[in-house]
Amino acid sequence: MNFGFALAGSDGAARAGWLRTAHGEVPTPSFMAVGTAGTVKAMTADAVRATGTGIVLGNTYHLMLRPGAERVARLGGLHAMMDWPGPILTDSGGFQIMSLAKLRKLDETGVTFRSHIDGAAHVLTPERSMEIQHLLDATITMVLDECTKFPATEDEAASSMRLSTRWAVRSRAAFVPRAGYGQFGIVQGGVFPALRAESVAALRAVDFEGYAIGGLAVGEGQALMFAMLDVTAPLLPEDKPRYLMGVGTPDDLLGSVARGVDMFDCVMPTRAGRTARAFCSTGVMNLRNARFAEDAGPLDAECGCLACRRHSRAYLHHLFRCGEILGPMLLTAHNLTYYNALMAGARAAILAGVYSEYCARVRAGWQT
Amino acid sequence: MNFGFALAGSDGAARAGWLRTAHGEVPTPSFMAVGTAGTVKAMTADAVRATGTGIVLGNTYHLMLRPGAERVARLGGLHAMMDWPGPILTDSGGFQIMSLAKLRKLDETGVTFRSHIDGAAHVLTPERSMEIQHLLDATITMVLDECTKFPATEDEAASSMRLSTRWAVRSRAAFVPRAGYGQFGIVQGGVFPALRAESVAALRAVDFEGYAIGGLAVGEGQALMFAMLDVTAPLLPEDKPRYLMGVGTPDDLLGSVARGVDMFDCVMPTRAGRTARAFCSTGVMNLRNARFAEDAGPLDAECGCLACRRHSRAYLHHLFRCGEILGPMLLTAHNLTYYNALMAGARAAILAGVYSEYCARVRAGWQT
Repeated sequence: MNFGFALAGSDGAARAGWLRTAHGEVPTPSFMAVGTAGTVKAMTADAVRATGTGIVLGNTYHLMLRPGAERVARLGGLHAMMDWPGPILTDSGGFQIMSLAKLRKLDETGVTFRSHIDGAAHVLTPERSMEIQHLLDATITMVLDECTKFPATEDEAASSMRLSTRWAVRSRAAFVPRAGYGQFGIVQGGVFPALRAESVAALRAVDFEGYAIGGLAVGEGQALMFAMLDVTAPLLPEDKPRYLMGVGTPDDLLGSVARGVDMFDCVMPTRAGRTARAFCSTGVMNLRNARFAEDAGPLDAECGCLACRRHSRAYLHHLFRCGEILGPMLLTAHNLTYYNALMAGARAAILAGVYSEYCARVRAGWQT
Repeated sequence: MNFGFALAGSDGAARAGWLRTAHGEVPTPSFMAVGTAGTVKAMTADAVRATGTGIVLGNTYHLMLRPGAERVARLGGLHAMMDWPGPILTDSGGFQIMSLAKLRKLDETGVTFRSHIDGAAHVLTPERSMEIQHLLDATITMVLDECTKFPATEDEAASSMRLSTRWAVRSRAAFVPRAGYGQFGIVQGGVFPALRAESVAALRAVDFEGYAIGGLAVGEGQALMFAMLDVTAPLLPEDKPRYLMGVGTPDDLLGSVARGVDMFDCVMPTRAGRTARAFCSTGVMNLRNARFAEDAGPLDAECGCLACRRHSRAYLHHLFRCGEILGPMLLTAHNLTYYNALMAGARAAILAGVYSEYCARVRAGWQT
């Protein structure tokens, strides 16, 4: 199957579609579960599938350090290694280097850094990042970019975005096209509409299989993020998928879908699940709270996940209070189920032309 | 269904049978997965079922402290709370108090101690232990006993065993008989055959639904443990189940089944699984070992568990090296599957009259 995106319907700027890949089709809008080091933390691959997850994300930075890209390739690629035959998107490594690695240094060539694990020196160039993602057998390869810091002056944002553009060109040249595989460019430009437009135009000239919007959810706040989506998304080609990187809360997702975004990834549902926070139709709950100690009701009466069908809030509270691994396991399963159901509900509402009513109903639930 | 034990066949002293309870039947010999605080660590209840586990064990000591026996009862009992409708055996709390609690003091009445969690003072008497196990809704209730320390003089072992006998009588009086529920007495007597015989005779006079052999696997070594089984098991009634507490390695299990034991529990497969050690048909492996880093083969080619069917040794090595929760999850599933398969194989061999050949074949595998 060729890589592609088919629009199934729209409601205002909100889009419902299909992402088609060598590793299967994914309905959009879609949330990608983060599987940093070749595992969605605290989840078997079967458990990830049971949450309705259609596509997972792997981290180039983590996997290049452990177990190493060449080793993953020798083991048959990331799909085989982690028992995920479905689509996998890998990031380029740039974002994690800037947030995790030590003694990092960035120049025109690429980034040199020391591993946060053992201090070993590494170099990541656009060409090496593409090679690593190829070795991992990523269904979707991301270009290497610099995630512009926030705040940044317009000059800083322009110069950072233009470096990312030059790296995008090099990344495209280094990408090995294969049927059903794709590569996404990444729009940068900080919070400056003209720079966002310049970035989109430059990337469209290269012509990628999809476009990511990067450099957001880095501290600018939801209003400014949405404003950037309002000026960026309309410039992107209609027939290509749009991926908002590292976003976000359920409310961020609803608002971004309304602005034409098709794909998301974020550690929020998985990380929150490991720290006892549950995303529910009635809002966010912290299961460590003593008020749940004798609450025999289900976590979320509207949810069909294992935690909600089989256990009480009191049991989940007990598990976290005792530091039992099953607590993170069950709450990660629940949160991914919630995010996937939120996106599935959005898709159905878009196709029915009632997306704004859907958002209003979901948001009203959070206030109860 | 009434609580009972039916012998299906035997081969020498080895027995194959059925344990019948209000919560279902369990083929014996059988290994009980340890679910200390209302969860088999790192496993969903579905995952425990998938390992072939028929009966799980809960800990009175841990559950009385967190979440509290009365709270478990208000939440519908341990079966409902942990999603395990099958049989549950609970220990009496005595063993954990002596190994975990602080400032413990034992007298004729019972044990006073301080919680290892928050230092709160507690008293556990035979009567309170029976009440707690009733509140937990234990399918099989254990009498409160004192696990005689090792080494102990014959006088110390005699006096400890006789205290346990008096507590067994009080435990029986405090037990509430219900159809399909049972209570097991616990044979003590250290490593002294005459004391073991005295203990058995006293407990048989009380007449329990089953008999446990306690005070072994406490440092005396396998040879002495087997010698004690050789003198104890023949004294126990044929028509009641026999449970060897806290045992053990796969080899311990094979040798104990040969001596007439029907039931076992031990933290070994679950704890080992969390620390990267795997019980396999070829012996024990430590998955942290660097020699597995590129081993694309399955953990155990003879095993049908999730870890063995879907993943490589190299992936398991990677997970433990990165401290990923999925490592303990997969290896716990594997080890419980191994223990259950070992017992299922033993049962089939006993019924076929080839138990010693089975043991020889299994042990030969460990040498490869």
